[in-house]
Amino acid sequence: MALYEISNHPFPTHTASSLSHHLPPSLLLPPNQSLSKQTISSPIFVHSLSLSLSLSLNLSVSVTMAVAELSTPLYTKTRLVHSSQLSFSSTHLRGHRRVAFRPLPQAKNARISCSVAPNQVQAPAAPPQTVDPKNKAECFGVFCLTYDLKAEEETKSWKKLINIAVSGAAGMISNHLLFKLASGEVFGPDQPIALKLLGSERSLQALEGVAMELEDSLFPLLREVSIGIDPYEVFQDAGWALLIGAKPRGPGMERAGLLDLNGQIFVEQGKALNAVASRNVKVIVVGNPCNTNALICLKNAPNIPAKNFHALTRLDENRAKCQLALKAGVFYDKVSNMTIWGNHSTTQVPDFLNARINGLPVKEVIKDKKWLEEEFTESIQKRGGVLIQKWGRSSAASTAVSIADAIKSLITPTPEGDWFSSGVYTTGNPYGIAEDIVFSMPCRSKGDGDYELVKDIQFDDYLLKRIKKTEAELLAEKRCVGHLTGQGIPVCDLPEDTMLPGEM
Amino acid sequence: MALYEISNHPFPTHTASSLSHHLPPSLLLPPNQSLSKQTISSPIFVHSLSLSLSLSLNLSVSVTMAVAELSTPLYTKTRLVHSSQLSFSSTHLRGHRRVAFRPLPQAKNARISCSVAPNQVQAPAAPPQTVDPKNKAECFGVFCLTYDLKAEEETKSWKKLINIAVSGAAGMISNHLLFKLASGEVFGPDQPIALKLLGSERSLQALEGVAMELEDSLFPLLREVSIGIDPYEVFQDAGWALLIGAKPRGPGMERAGLLDLNGQIFVEQGKALNAVASRNVKVIVVGNPCNTNALICLKNAPNIPAKNFHALTRLDENRAKCQLALKAGVFYDKVSNMTIWGNHSTTQVPDFLNARINGLPVKEVIKDKKWLEEEFTESIQKRGGVLIQKWGRSSAASTAVSIADAIKSLITPTPEGDWFSSGVYTTGNPYGIAEDIVFSMPCRSKGDGDYELVKDIQFDDYLLKRIKKTEAELLAEKRCVGHLTGQGIPVCDLPEDTMLPGEM
Repeated sequence: MALYEISNHPFPTHTASSLSHHLPPSLLLPPNQSLSKQTISSPIFVHSLSLSLSLSLNLSVSVTMAVAELSTPLYTKTRLVHSSQLSFSSTHLRGHRRVAFRPLPQAKNARISCSVAPNQVQAPAAPPQTVDPKNKAECFGVFCLTYDLKAEEETKSWKKLINIAVSGAAGMISNHLLFKLASGEVFGPDQPIALKLLGSERSLQALEGVAMELEDSLFPLLREVSIGIDPYEVFQDAGWALLIGAKPRGPGMERAGLLDLNGQIFVEQGKALNAVASRNVKVIVVGNPCNTNALICLKNAPNIPAKNFHALTRLDENRAKCQLALKAGVFYDKVSNMTIWGNHSTTQVPDFLNARINGLPVKEVIKDKKWLEEEFTESIQKRGGVLIQKWGRSSAASTAVSIADAIKSLITPTPEGDWFSSGVYTTGNPYGIAEDIVFSMPCRSKGDGDYELVKDIQFDDYLLKRIKKTEAELLAEKRCVGHLTGQGIPVCDLPEDTMLPGEM
Repeated sequence: MALYEISNHPFPTHTASSLSHHLPPSLLLPPNQSLSKQTISSPIFVHSLSLSLSLSLNLSVSVTMAVAELSTPLYTKTRLVHSSQLSFSSTHLRGHRRVAFRPLPQAKNARISCSVAPNQVQAPAAPPQTVDPKNKAECFGVFCLTYDLKAEEETKSWKKLINIAVSGAAGMISNHLLFKLASGEVFGPDQPIALKLLGSERSLQALEGVAMELEDSLFPLLREVSIGIDPYEVFQDAGWALLIGAKPRGPGMERAGLLDLNGQIFVEQGKALNAVASRNVKVIVVGNPCNTNALICLKNAPNIPAKNFHALTRLDENRAKCQLALKAGVFYDKVSNMTIWGNHSTTQVPDFLNARINGLPVKEVIKDKKWLEEEFTESIQKRGGVLIQKWGRSSAASTAVSIADAIKSLITPTPEGDWFSSGVYTTGNPYGIAEDIVFSMPCRSKGDGDYELVKDIQFDDYLLKRIKKTEAELLAEKRCVGHLTGQGIPVCDLPEDTMLPGEM
């Protein structure tokens, strides 16, 4: 990610074209010149990524890019990358395909356009990009076969097929999640599904590997798998979009840098959803910083209800329940009504005021106030870091479980008296939380994919004070991505690093 | 694994003591001297392993060991390791435990005894090793809490808890499988389970990480998780033993070397199962070479019915179904009656004579005889290799799916007219296959955990010839591990390397 180390010039703002002379000549191409096809000679494995800027050493990609480092007092670090000049041509790496399965039709003109230009602040209501109807994501192997669910005796009672798009599909979280989705464990034994896997140029071979393993698993409910690198192809008619892919934070990168880098991805994906997904698509953003990524995404998808966008805080909720159970000496299924308030960051607020153990308020069961106020939250937040230390990698399996939980909470009625947490759009919330951000709050669902916020919530000074802090952070993050949400020039004043340990 | 490169002396056989002067002095300790505790300072991740000989560079283990290299014409390579002199003391690495969960009681005297002595050929009917009743595998975190399933309203209708032991529990296959087991997907929504995770000294921290992720997943049916490195602890009362852990084949190691190295593990685990598992434990061996490992295991567990031991060939069966579907242009759920005959190696025989597509014999649907006879089998066998090439790692997810399939096939009635493949004990088989080996054959189950071999099978010259070849290989493997099965001095005459590509 050396591109981000280029300069620290003390000018307030620049257009991409005025900045391009600061870039090394090797990074410059004439505007709009597309890239030649690349080949990858060895298998490449990518943990958790998505379209994004594939500027790895493995790919000798030439790009036209302009990078601005803004450093007036108001700006800490904001990087602007010129969208229209950065594109990757599709490289489909068919070399080994014939070994294992039939040659498949190649998508033409697959491309990803990353990022926004400083002189072209996102206009969320812009008409959707026209999509070439032939420009579909590719079906894969056995999943290219035609079938008629209605004509088959045993599948006649099945529901209508739904399209589930997953970004970062070659990463470890997806590697757990996709098999859960395909098995029927999440959407049920009568819900056939089509998986639409979004990867990057670098991960395309790995995506083929994932698709091969899905084939070999013979899941009866999994009727279609397609893979691609263009969200405008992959998100076509998606009923669910599980946005897991994001760039990991590079060494020395601050949260503001990550916000901008990953924000670019979610501008693109929001626009793609707006253009081609189902009008009632449910979107769960997992890639970090997930709350503000979800905000960026929904701002770029004005034709999809803002209510349909979620930022995943379910793993935090699950971990909080487990820690309360451990402290109380009860099994974890005795803990209910657990809310995570706010941001998926260290300012998150696991709410022990409203949570219950065996139906009783937590404070009636756990008398250790010091533990609740000073250790409980930390025990949740450090969990990911401890896991990496022990296990050597991040908690992909339990993250995938929590994504499945988040989906199931929206498609099954919430048990009487209970609720679940999700990072959702605040406009119209009954708690007095600032509007127009994505904030984790307590939700209930009738099982129709929609939710309502829980009204009967208590607050005390301790809880309110902490909610204010995480709210302030989300408002600061929002100001920092104004260029990505159509809300003006970004102002980054994030005071501290609040990334959760174990999450990059 | 440099220990195995020590010598190639042309003497036919030796006792360990007569050989010990061939070993470097650094490897020698006085007989029966136990090892001092080791500490591991950084998290160690181990892909797929089990107790085994943890002679890694990460552990400065001192061992007493004698290695014999037998090289008469009958013996290609056989290594004998002196059991009674090799032991590891338990190192529980509690340093970080208090960060995340309560301190837990430590198992005392946990040890593993690896391998057999050349002068002490295994006596399978020997009395089971006495086990210290306090010497239990450790419960983990929230799973140490007591609960009473019978007393709880919502769990009253549940079945009796079953213990499922998994070896190689810190590896990638297990990382997929354990979460499938815990979710209820395999054993059903009314079957509470206890997971008993067997790892090695090296993987104990990783096992803690796995247990933490299981905690965080809040699976209601998962009532107990315990971890340990001693199979005599971990297999206690196991109703199922899923033996995934095995040493990967080192560079330059031949199949005979792997047979001996991993065979040692299965001697130990067979004895442990014999001593402490449920008398009707079902055992599925996944670690390679799985057929002969299963044979070794059952020979060392004479008090458990030989019929209860399985070698996993289900991934081969699933892949075969998928390849037939692709070739026939039908969805994979149309392929049935697929048998894999014989060894889980390149001599395996995917049976297209008896398999059916849409209820018709394969040959009536796929007329391309050349493809069936020359390309079909290869397409299955090369699958794992192609996957590694694309995906960068081995096919853990689909292997885990196939293990779940294998279990489900034993606990649910086989659909009318269909069957499944499993590597099972041949004694009494109706096909004329040599007795006293573990051979993949077509099975049907009433759903009671047991199975019967399918009688109505056709054979033709092509099929019989290939079955003979894989049978010959399994008989040769059996001769090669006579010292591990109680059947005398080993004679290794394996002519070629038949490991499947992509499996080490």
